[in-house]
Amino acid sequence: MGEFELIARHFTRPAPPGGAVVLGVGDDGALLQPTPGHQLAISTDMLVEGRHFFAGADPEALGHKALAVNLSDLAAMGARPLGFTLALALPTADDAWIAAFARGLFALADAHACPLVGGDTTRGPLNLCITVFGEVRPGRALRRDAARAGDDLWLSGRTGEARLALALRRGEAWAQGEAADVADRMDRPTPRLALGQALATLDGVRAALDLSDGLLGDLGHILKASGVGAEVGVDTLPVAPALQSLALEHRLDCLLAGGDDYELLFTADPTARDAVLAAGRTAGVAVTRIGRITAIPGLQLFDAQGHGMETRRRGFDHFAD
Amino acid sequence: MGEFELIARHFTRPAPPGGAVVLGVGDDGALLQPTPGHQLAISTDMLVEGRHFFAGADPEALGHKALAVNLSDLAAMGARPLGFTLALALPTADDAWIAAFARGLFALADAHACPLVGGDTTRGPLNLCITVFGEVRPGRALRRDAARAGDDLWLSGRTGEARLALALRRGEAWAQGEAADVADRMDRPTPRLALGQALATLDGVRAALDLSDGLLGDLGHILKASGVGAEVGVDTLPVAPALQSLALEHRLDCLLAGGDDYELLFTADPTARDAVLAAGRTAGVAVTRIGRITAIPGLQLFDAQGHGMETRRRGFDHFAD
Repeated sequence: MGEFELIARHFTRPAPPGGAVVLGVGDDGALLQPTPGHQLAISTDMLVEGRHFFAGADPEALGHKALAVNLSDLAAMGARPLGFTLALALPTADDAWIAAFARGLFALADAHACPLVGGDTTRGPLNLCITVFGEVRPGRALRRDAARAGDDLWLSGRTGEARLALALRRGEAWAQGEAADVADRMDRPTPRLALGQALATLDGVRAALDLSDGLLGDLGHILKASGVGAEVGVDTLPVAPALQSLALEHRLDCLLAGGDDYELLFTADPTARDAVLAAGRTAGVAVTRIGRITAIPGLQLFDAQGHGMETRRRGFDHFAD
Repeated sequence: MGEFELIARHFTRPAPPGGAVVLGVGDDGALLQPTPGHQLAISTDMLVEGRHFFAGADPEALGHKALAVNLSDLAAMGARPLGFTLALALPTADDAWIAAFARGLFALADAHACPLVGGDTTRGPLNLCITVFGEVRPGRALRRDAARAGDDLWLSGRTGEARLALALRRGEAWAQGEAADVADRMDRPTPRLALGQALATLDGVRAALDLSDGLLGDLGHILKASGVGAEVGVDTLPVAPALQSLALEHRLDCLLAGGDDYELLFTADPTARDAVLAAGRTAGVAVTRIGRITAIPGLQLFDAQGHGMETRRRGFDHFAD
């Protein structure tokens, strides 16, 4: 048995009883039994060293994050996780690294009853590819193309802390604060699964996605897919304590174009406001109305006085074309 | 829009009508609607340059092979393909390379009505990770742990040509023949989907897997998972014309331990012989009885005279421990 097969043993655990897994790791493939009548939601993300994470990154945090960014996609669809596969290329068979990675991975997987059902381990430049499967009732998935003019625009949690954490780690001159306060927001994002699933049950909740590339850029995906525009009240955005001492320009950069937030951005009919707020309370995450969807294409930002603001921030560019 | 988003456009095609795809590429995830009551079969494989394929490999063949090895896993479970995701790390945004890769990929995908439903494209050392989804009736999936003493042992097609092709490409001294005759067996393997699905409908067909690491090594997986042994008649193995001029030792190496064959190895009750042969005819691939499953653990090879043969060939080692 080769060293990589031994490494793969870190990932072989019995399938949890009572779940959707009929056959787990070890055969040609896995077998899942979704709930009858449900649709299957699927997402895949590949994380490459030096691009999505620093060389030498803490493997336990990396295990968490690799799964979290995939679960966040399921959250954004309102899907309940069923399981995931992991394909892993490693430059060396480092047992301690793998053990720590597996610890971070399985802690999050167990917290969401989302078992590893299959995978592949090989030698190569460090590369993590996770594919995650969930289920959702037909017609209930939250899509990007469902926003309508008149919808409220909602945000879960707060944006910008992950961007500040990145700046502190890089030693960017403008960043100020305690790195420890915000590091987990970059290294250990929280997929908003409970909120996403609750929203998918509500009439009037329409489009949703998870924020990975920055609020404005990702909002652009909803606007483009739905053929609508939006107005965002910048003063309505929740500001984390760590961001309050930043110069206005940098605070807005973090809030509007930070990236790596993994919060949900979603639209809902105004009649659903109380239900949305209740869903947030039940899911344990604040939800904030930050604007509204308009029939006129394009995005308008407004300050507290109702004056229009400049919108061309990093992360928004690829919406503009 | 970045160069990698432009590259990703090569992979954005409309979902085929009438299939399982409710929502394809472009949202947070894909939505599939499996046939009611069916189980979901899932497999993932990661291919790394320099390990699974040569640097500079023909991108069109690579597109074929990356999907073929995954479809082969579905074939080995008897599952019908529903769709796949592709995560791709590329060192440079080479439009011509991507176009050729996509051509090879989609030609095979279209041949098996298995649409691309989602993916991820990023910059990084060349790495291809495909995850494939299929469906199978409950209780009908062909598993590795289902072989029983008394079962016939069957092989689809022939083994060894891919190994000879590899040797010819590497210029190994023992290899003789026309490289062109066998190159496609290595570069463009044929997933035995029709055969696998036909076998899964037959009573009496039990264990199966697809041959990726060599016949003896992979047979070992069935024996270990099922807690049984096997006898293999080496003279019953089909020998491709290209292998007939090889010295006996090298011919046996190719046949028994070659790897990259992507043929199906399966077991079936002797009462199912006629049905298995008919399934092979319908699927357009020869199926050959090459031995039988025994209650006594371990593997015995026999020659044409019924004499026991040495079994410790490369590829079989990781069964032995």
